[in-house]
Amino acid sequence: VEFIDLPNQDNLEQIKSKVSNLKSDLACFIFEPLVQGAGGMLMYNADLLSELIYHCKKENVLTIADEVMTGFGRTGKLFASDYLTNKADLMCFSKGLTGGTMPLGITTCTQSIYDAFLHDDKLKTLFHGHSFTANPVACAASNASFDLLIQDKTTVNIQRIMAKHQLFALEIKDNPKLKDVRQQGTIIALEWDTEATSYFNNIRDTLYNFFLSKNILLRPLGNILYIMPPYCISNDDLDYIYNNIKIALSKF
Amino acid sequence: VEFIDLPNQDNLEQIKSKVSNLKSDLACFIFEPLVQGAGGMLMYNADLLSELIYHCKKENVLTIADEVMTGFGRTGKLFASDYLTNKADLMCFSKGLTGGTMPLGITTCTQSIYDAFLHDDKLKTLFHGHSFTANPVACAASNASFDLLIQDKTTVNIQRIMAKHQLFALEIKDNPKLKDVRQQGTIIALEWDTEATSYFNNIRDTLYNFFLSKNILLRPLGNILYIMPPYCISNDDLDYIYNNIKIALSKF
Repeated sequence: VEFIDLPNQDNLEQIKSKVSNLKSDLACFIFEPLVQGAGGMLMYNADLLSELIYHCKKENVLTIADEVMTGFGRTGKLFASDYLTNKADLMCFSKGLTGGTMPLGITTCTQSIYDAFLHDDKLKTLFHGHSFTANPVACAASNASFDLLIQDKTTVNIQRIMAKHQLFALEIKDNPKLKDVRQQGTIIALEWDTEATSYFNNIRDTLYNFFLSKNILLRPLGNILYIMPPYCISNDDLDYIYNNIKIALSKF
Repeated sequence: VEFIDLPNQDNLEQIKSKVSNLKSDLACFIFEPLVQGAGGMLMYNADLLSELIYHCKKENVLTIADEVMTGFGRTGKLFASDYLTNKADLMCFSKGLTGGTMPLGITTCTQSIYDAFLHDDKLKTLFHGHSFTANPVACAASNASFDLLIQDKTTVNIQRIMAKHQLFALEIKDNPKLKDVRQQGTIIALEWDTEATSYFNNIRDTLYNFFLSKNILLRPLGNILYIMPPYCISNDDLDYIYNNIKIALSKF
């Protein structure tokens, strides 16, 4: 596995060269579109990703969008890929697929990939099945969750959370305890200015326990504190979280 | 990955030599205990497996029992590993864990493996979590299913199915259409005597559609027809399946 840096205007050409140099060894380019989740809620520009996908297509490298965390409204649009002008060949979904209630994942692909496995010869089968493939209860939960997701009032809720996050970001962005405040859709992330940004930063436990004592479940990624609320969260609950973050900023 | 043949009295020493020769390259020995499921419901002797596990332990090769299909009463005892005098270091469970109702899997390990990840240094963590780890609804289903499984009446049901399978095996074992009839616990498998035993044998579709037309869902593995019923199946339903198998034997 080769890793690339988070794309930006300065390193994009370098990343494209790397893809071109490695293409004969590359099965695919896999990415979390717009927001890298467990990596630290790292956010990057949709146009740069579109350009990278275009480059991969030109070099015949398959592209896979991991929409597990970003899908189903999380980034503001129905899918993060909806911000892109070039789309991935394969896409992975889970989490929001069932509204987080039931274990389920889906992988989608383009027609040409599907057709590669469509054949009278059984040896052309995609031999991937597992014990709970298409579990009917999970599929029913997914359908029910999707019905809720595409309601107008859910769209309004997502817009409401985005707007409130934006206001909160403005309010705290110059706080000296913070190195960065970033937001994409319903996700807002605060990077605590600590010695080193790391998944293992000990401030994680301090913050986690502080918020838990306030009956708020936040799970910082090291020194990255983030809010990723359910779309039904009330303004009062959001304000309660924001206020406690301000208290945490004054304490830690 | 190195594969070994199904163990028998004749090849056991050869398999043990293979393990000894490869041991420096072996991470582990993984097996389905007593019954290889999708491989064709291949059944083998518990004592031979115990001897192989003992040999692996002696050679410092970890052993993993895949009890996904064999666990939770399927082979007659609570776990197939309960037939073994030597136990695996790790065990995998799913399917019967929730009675097949909800997606869930569990991996267990010995204390010494657990302790290898127990450390103040976070870098010693077993970094394996996923979106739906320990889904609470699936865990509740698993607890409820286990409560049912350990009831006396379930034990009686399992014994009843085993005894009926044994009688049916005796009844059909000399049928000229069959190359083999084998049974372990609540699983009975009939190997149709076709040109070649294969997952791709076309008799699969013939048998599948015949039984479906009789409102019986059986999913042959090529020319291997098997019954793996829920423990609550009635004697009448079992007899109905047996009778239709006899019809199939006269037709195909």
